[in-house]
Amino acid sequence: METTIKNIITTKIVRLYDETNPLIMDCGDLFSPIDVAYETYGELNSEGTNAIVVCHALTGSAHAAGYSSEDPKSIGWWDSFIGEGKPLDTKKYFIISSNFLGGCYGTTGSSSINPGTGKPYGLSFPQMTVRDMVRVQKSLIDHLGVRKLRTVIGGSLGGMQVLEWALMYPEIVESIIPIATAAQHSPWAIGLNDVARQAIMNDPEWRSGNYYEFGQPEKGLALARQVAMLSYRSEKEFQQRFGRERQKENIKENPLHRNTSNLFQIESYLRYQGKKLVQRFDANTYLYITRAMDIHDVAFGRGDLNKVLHSIKIPSLFIGIDSDILYPESEQKNIAKALPNSLYREILSPYGHDAFLIEFDQMSNYVTEFLEK
Amino acid sequence: METTIKNIITTKIVRLYDETNPLIMDCGDLFSPIDVAYETYGELNSEGTNAIVVCHALTGSAHAAGYSSEDPKSIGWWDSFIGEGKPLDTKKYFIISSNFLGGCYGTTGSSSINPGTGKPYGLSFPQMTVRDMVRVQKSLIDHLGVRKLRTVIGGSLGGMQVLEWALMYPEIVESIIPIATAAQHSPWAIGLNDVARQAIMNDPEWRSGNYYEFGQPEKGLALARQVAMLSYRSEKEFQQRFGRERQKENIKENPLHRNTSNLFQIESYLRYQGKKLVQRFDANTYLYITRAMDIHDVAFGRGDLNKVLHSIKIPSLFIGIDSDILYPESEQKNIAKALPNSLYREILSPYGHDAFLIEFDQMSNYVTEFLEK
Repeated sequence: METTIKNIITTKIVRLYDETNPLIMDCGDLFSPIDVAYETYGELNSEGTNAIVVCHALTGSAHAAGYSSEDPKSIGWWDSFIGEGKPLDTKKYFIISSNFLGGCYGTTGSSSINPGTGKPYGLSFPQMTVRDMVRVQKSLIDHLGVRKLRTVIGGSLGGMQVLEWALMYPEIVESIIPIATAAQHSPWAIGLNDVARQAIMNDPEWRSGNYYEFGQPEKGLALARQVAMLSYRSEKEFQQRFGRERQKENIKENPLHRNTSNLFQIESYLRYQGKKLVQRFDANTYLYITRAMDIHDVAFGRGDLNKVLHSIKIPSLFIGIDSDILYPESEQKNIAKALPNSLYREILSPYGHDAFLIEFDQMSNYVTEFLEK
Repeated sequence: METTIKNIITTKIVRLYDETNPLIMDCGDLFSPIDVAYETYGELNSEGTNAIVVCHALTGSAHAAGYSSEDPKSIGWWDSFIGEGKPLDTKKYFIISSNFLGGCYGTTGSSSINPGTGKPYGLSFPQMTVRDMVRVQKSLIDHLGVRKLRTVIGGSLGGMQVLEWALMYPEIVESIIPIATAAQHSPWAIGLNDVARQAIMNDPEWRSGNYYEFGQPEKGLALARQVAMLSYRSEKEFQQRFGRERQKENIKENPLHRNTSNLFQIESYLRYQGKKLVQRFDANTYLYITRAMDIHDVAFGRGDLNKVLHSIKIPSLFIGIDSDILYPESEQKNIAKALPNSLYREILSPYGHDAFLIEFDQMSNYVTEFLEK
């Protein structure tokens, strides 16, 4: 290997809930045990007031920065954003990133072993909500001795958690940075998630969620991912990147192609993305998390949406992406407008929704400027 | 029944190709027999010069106007547009509407019986192209004694046929009206079609296309339709129509809903749309037609796209829809700009791509104005 990777980061796991201290969930369940996988970067100051919580999106993990192995590909999903001299500067801040409740990267979720049965929970796992995820993150920061959060930041489903942090723990959160997200999951986004879920559940290999001893519902999960990818990227990017180029490989197993003899590159790209997710993500978990997104509604049980948003008095920086079709810029602007102390900034990008994982230069400027104030 | 429906229209079927006169297809096949299902409205003048061809979209049929039975629901898909005093005025024009090659509404396609085997073609049907569809329509107008086409009009895949009409038969076509369409199918639209095809082919009931004696791959075809519906409508319409309303019915068979106990209305709507298509459309046909759309490229074999479009000298009226995410307005404007004698008009609508089947008032004004010139 060319580069030597030092300081390999290991994801820690801590049990935050047990039988004597179960999580009280929105669905009414008292649930335990719950283990939480997390990473931290930087040092907590003695007052416990320089912490930042980073919230990940649908298929993300606690591994936001650094390398988890000597493989350069093991770099964290927001590494360009977190570290010495970077916007989330580890010289100044103590950054906490955890896999959310119901995830499949170390935190307890539907693919975890139910200690009562010795088998994975599967569909017996309770339906968690975004608020449940945030409750668990709050337990984690308590465990770590954090007293104040300088900010909570995240994109997409991460941004939903950010909004809930501000509403659930206003005494702790000093500012928020929600990126390309929703205050209430829109019906179009719900529809998209439901189509993805059906793709998984239609796959006979899903076996009503009891597939763990047989292997994943590969086709279904791969298809779910492909549906999602079409909403994560933009027409413009696909046009620039793939156009109408054909893939040279023959797809012999598909008789439909006997007269066209090959696939368009965009099809090959989507299939590749689908296959990649199957290798790293659990199908039931995909069902649960997308459902948690659909249920997400900051107004639920709190009254009028605008009043609820208006009650977030802390400084907030909203970031939207001009080419995002999943959580459109107009939606970001509307949320930002409802907050009394908010700033709105725009990412110009052909990458669509995924720009929050790609356009670091633009985001860095906005976030650095906001945090320095 | 309240209303008495007179003048029930029967779709006619004519054999236009046989063994002595097969269709020479883009894929190289010499194919026959081909029957074509069509309807006509109005009278052809003695010179054969007052005809208009109407081209239907993906799941459409020849039945564009009038009633096909005494059931008021049997009304044609563009009835508001075709008839006495309507924009396509049957007092003036002889309107021809046919089910395209490879369809499943009377014209020969993959669900038709192969006379050589006595069984449906299934995947042994050749992959037709949009140009093949237009070749067959040309044979039909020849059969009907038509010498000139006052215009060719259609939306979506219908619009793709319109563009090919202008390029393939410039000596016959006097004007064109392409609506919400593409000159080259975009990679985003190809991706969407491919995801829909995978939904069908992933269904074990698809049986590699040999399902005819067992019944349709219902789940797969329904899912394909739902994917498509998300691109046919807009976020805005779903927001206004469904918002985050829940459906009252319990979805007991799905244990995922045990804690949410019901579905969002948008999910129920999409599932209903999926089921409805299964009852009226053939799964293999869906595969073939979406593939024909993906292959669609007016520049293919003709040289530079802009030059090809510029060669369409006849008057053209392009109509785009402001909320269309499938064939965005910008795409319509770009095509229109490339033609030397084109007009562009915009439909303002929350309905997205489907607006061309809904917003008749706006379209009527544009089309009437254009045809009167």
